[in-house]
Amino acid sequence: MTPDRPGLSMPRLIALDWGTTSMRSWLLGDEGRILETREPAGGLLDMAAGIDAADPAARARAYEAAYLDVCGGWLRDHPGLPALACGMVGSAQGWCEAGYLTVPARLDSTARSLTEITLAAGAVHLVPGLRVASDARHDIPGDVLRGEETQVIGVLELIARPDAEHIVVLPGTHTKWMRIEDRTVRSFTTAMSGELYGLVTGHGLLSHTATDPRRDDAAFTRGLTAGFSPRERGLATALFGARALVLDGLLAPSSLADYLSGVVLADEVRHLLPQYRAERIVLCGNADLCRRYAAALRMRGVVTEVVGEDAAAAGLWSIAVAAGVVAAEAASR
Amino acid sequence: MTPDRPGLSMPRLIALDWGTTSMRSWLLGDEGRILETREPAGGLLDMAAGIDAADPAARARAYEAAYLDVCGGWLRDHPGLPALACGMVGSAQGWCEAGYLTVPARLDSTARSLTEITLAAGAVHLVPGLRVASDARHDIPGDVLRGEETQVIGVLELIARPDAEHIVVLPGTHTKWMRIEDRTVRSFTTAMSGELYGLVTGHGLLSHTATDPRRDDAAFTRGLTAGFSPRERGLATALFGARALVLDGLLAPSSLADYLSGVVLADEVRHLLPQYRAERIVLCGNADLCRRYAAALRMRGVVTEVVGEDAAAAGLWSIAVAAGVVAAEAASR
Repeated sequence: MTPDRPGLSMPRLIALDWGTTSMRSWLLGDEGRILETREPAGGLLDMAAGIDAADPAARARAYEAAYLDVCGGWLRDHPGLPALACGMVGSAQGWCEAGYLTVPARLDSTARSLTEITLAAGAVHLVPGLRVASDARHDIPGDVLRGEETQVIGVLELIARPDAEHIVVLPGTHTKWMRIEDRTVRSFTTAMSGELYGLVTGHGLLSHTATDPRRDDAAFTRGLTAGFSPRERGLATALFGARALVLDGLLAPSSLADYLSGVVLADEVRHLLPQYRAERIVLCGNADLCRRYAAALRMRGVVTEVVGEDAAAAGLWSIAVAAGVVAAEAASR
Repeated sequence: MTPDRPGLSMPRLIALDWGTTSMRSWLLGDEGRILETREPAGGLLDMAAGIDAADPAARARAYEAAYLDVCGGWLRDHPGLPALACGMVGSAQGWCEAGYLTVPARLDSTARSLTEITLAAGAVHLVPGLRVASDARHDIPGDVLRGEETQVIGVLELIARPDAEHIVVLPGTHTKWMRIEDRTVRSFTTAMSGELYGLVTGHGLLSHTATDPRRDDAAFTRGLTAGFSPRERGLATALFGARALVLDGLLAPSSLADYLSGVVLADEVRHLLPQYRAERIVLCGNADLCRRYAAALRMRGVVTEVVGEDAAAAGLWSIAVAAGVVAAEAASR
């Protein structure tokens, strides 16, 4: 181990968390140590804009070019370095469809189900996503995720008692609630609250009212309180109510966005917490979003523990070792 | 009365329902008979795009120009013809702020609270909106509407027992639920379900999945059923679930929009129907939207009666007569 001299650590893996709206890439050394991080602007949505969705070959060329654009320097310095990528890059609209494992799914089966893309510069492996199958007979929708399976593998590396039952919430545009037990994903649920918040504050009527947004934690808490109130009358009504508060001079236009954030988040927690009954929840994601979820959950008596976004790098390393994508000697050197 | 010879009816009033996203104008003759209708594309949002919101004089000039653009021909043929307008045109961002009446509000007080704009071509009167005041002490948002007060006055002209208690729902981008009794608006609630539906299908992730939309009543009913299900886990989750149905091949991409319409509408009805407890509801608005609300309400055991959008014209005439904007002889000629 050379924890204080990262310069001596050999690069072993390019790890990528490549999602719909963002991409993060890490150069990982022995034991998965982070040697370098690159976070280019944009994710799949930006890329997809210029590509003919019906032409898989054109799509693959575009993804390869984007990959080399971000990681080409690492590959030039370390020819043949393997890469492992998780996220929407493995979806049908991504680089190459990497499939799904159906829950309940043991997290260690992920490493046995990688999809390999052969490039001259070095292989790229894709992590499969997870799915809850729809129930056709009762017309109950299933669910899907990509990337969070890898973050959760990283989370289990970073928390105590990884074999116990845990509720892990991964806040984001499409927040995932997951029940893990014995390193197995028992079930998960998506709430697209982050997307709804973005749509309402970015495009709708309220975007005209929410001028000059400024952080206002008190307004966020007021939004949570309104959303948790027994008087709550649905998201479509609560969101409009925020505008009345502004018209009546009870809420500054600059604080409207934080109020709405509270309303939307409370609606999610109010619906999903009863399903995922927990006194303790592990949050993994962006620091500001985790802070908001922690505040909301605290109001419902839930204790939270926060794990940072680098959990994805830890998860990718763990999968790469288990799959033999990196040499065993690197794993425990 | 000259019901079969409209050509003999003298034009008495220009009536306008001028909202955020659309404008309808009518040339009304004796007894409020509709002689002509004009429905130009666009509403206030399109107009406001080019105007400096901080300059009321510039805004007023722009609205006057838009008004003369649509109704100038009528005014040239009938100089001095008075006009009465309802809707967002009377908001702070509109032509001229026409104020609000606070509920409970007798509908006949509307006619005593008009705001007059003097033009060389003839006066334009604006109808005040209605508001539910926010409760500052308990931080409970109030509500606002503009235009629907006039539609409801028209509705009472068109239905039986106008003095009885009625629940009137006016579907739209911002649907209004109103409790009327003794021609008094006791309370109302806005649900911006229509806007949420538009944002989700027009801008969000689901807009990429909902390709080539086609009417599918069965998909709409499935969405309603999902939204009304006791398993329902909040709008943010139900909307994402629709995507899983498509991924699992259980819903055609072209039917996704109708499914989402059902999900959003059920969420609204599930929240607001208990508050407006009713076995019978009067719907007033766009025919397709009223059909959707009727289907949703029928699933909850509610009988509906539909009144068309021309209720606004009837309401404007009624207000104009009560306010003396049109001569008494025209009202009952």
